[in-house]
Amino acid sequence: MIDWIAFDADDTLWKNEEYYLGGRDRFLEILQKYGLGTADIENFDKFEVENIQYFGYGVMSFVLSMIEIGIEMTEEKIHPSDIQKLIHLAKEMLSHEVEVFEGINHLLENLSAECPLMLITKGDLLHQQRKFAASGLAQYFRAVEVVSDKSPGVYEDILNRYNIEPERFLMIGNSLRSDILPILELGGWAMHLAGHPTWSHEDDPTNHLDQERYLEVEGISQVLEELTEADLLSR
Amino acid sequence: MIDWIAFDADDTLWKNEEYYLGGRDRFLEILQKYGLGTADIENFDKFEVENIQYFGYGVMSFVLSMIEIGIEMTEEKIHPSDIQKLIHLAKEMLSHEVEVFEGINHLLENLSAECPLMLITKGDLLHQQRKFAASGLAQYFRAVEVVSDKSPGVYEDILNRYNIEPERFLMIGNSLRSDILPILELGGWAMHLAGHPTWSHEDDPTNHLDQERYLEVEGISQVLEELTEADLLSR
Repeated sequence: MIDWIAFDADDTLWKNEEYYLGGRDRFLEILQKYGLGTADIENFDKFEVENIQYFGYGVMSFVLSMIEIGIEMTEEKIHPSDIQKLIHLAKEMLSHEVEVFEGINHLLENLSAECPLMLITKGDLLHQQRKFAASGLAQYFRAVEVVSDKSPGVYEDILNRYNIEPERFLMIGNSLRSDILPILELGGWAMHLAGHPTWSHEDDPTNHLDQERYLEVEGISQVLEELTEADLLSR
Repeated sequence: MIDWIAFDADDTLWKNEEYYLGGRDRFLEILQKYGLGTADIENFDKFEVENIQYFGYGVMSFVLSMIEIGIEMTEEKIHPSDIQKLIHLAKEMLSHEVEVFEGINHLLENLSAECPLMLITKGDLLHQQRKFAASGLAQYFRAVEVVSDKSPGVYEDILNRYNIEPERFLMIGNSLRSDILPILELGGWAMHLAGHPTWSHEDDPTNHLDQERYLEVEGISQVLEELTEADLLSR
């Protein structure tokens, strides 16, 4: 029933949000030296989202936004050595080890025997490619698409290029906004990893997901069973 | 004789290096306030190239490197307001208008009637896509590939995916390092736009380019004539 299964990468196959939360904590520590606190850092999220139009998604965007709002919120009192710390944080985040979630290897081995797998990930091209290479998962994927945004139009373009019918396409991911809703809109199948850590910007609590082609599991260990139950795999 | 013609984007189809040179001048102005000068900024180029391993190519990489070395060179004396100026420079560079070189529309109109055209550009995914969309040139291209680096392996992968024989592939660009040498290494045809502005890192003065499949012109206006003379077009 399904010709292609696509996976999101960050927070679906490997840890990601954890590093951003760690980076946010380091930023908060810096701000506290200037008398700012948790309430002030709430502004950062909004600010970061506004900057996506310029910087897109990824570590460099995250850190440039921290530097910019850090200077603003401290009224230019932030010490250059603290800004240097944020740049070093960027380098750390861009070069850390890739921690693949438990069960991913087993799942991909099984699914890649059923149908071709595609990776569809958004963000910084170099960083995404480097993480994919370091993950050891490349052997399971027939295709890799790094995109700057995950809108229905972007997915439609991918489906067209690969000649895939939406109703024979399944996307698995942790983000309602990026991995699930656009696919349902196109008439495809989408499986939400509801228990995986997810950046608040990627949630979409306003949507009712009572559609036939929407599947939900807590984590990786339930994916195979759920797909079998939904009768989406050929065997 | 040629099945596909590929073009580089920055400094081949539209202005790019000019903005980086302008950004470098703004950075120099800032450094001068701290008693530093042209000699010191020479370090910046080396430093920027070293940071490519983390940040890749593009505006965010350029500006993060300026902030980092600016803090280092001023021994942490740089004022946060000057760092803010560099972040605003990044936003400016990421959202400026795209200035297509004279003669490009005419050239692409002619060549796209001969064979399919591909854009192969390296750098920041979001920025490259945005410039391509804004350029008004999308109608001429059958395929677009944004890559994080232009090594022979990256080109080989593209040729394989599109099923193109190297000897029936021509790449046109301004950078010897990125657009010309890797293609010649693979056995393809490459045409260098020798008169276009090029970042020093993209030059490669050590190489002898006396190969049969190497073509050189000063600028866009000579491309069609040179291709006809080399008998590379079907008509």
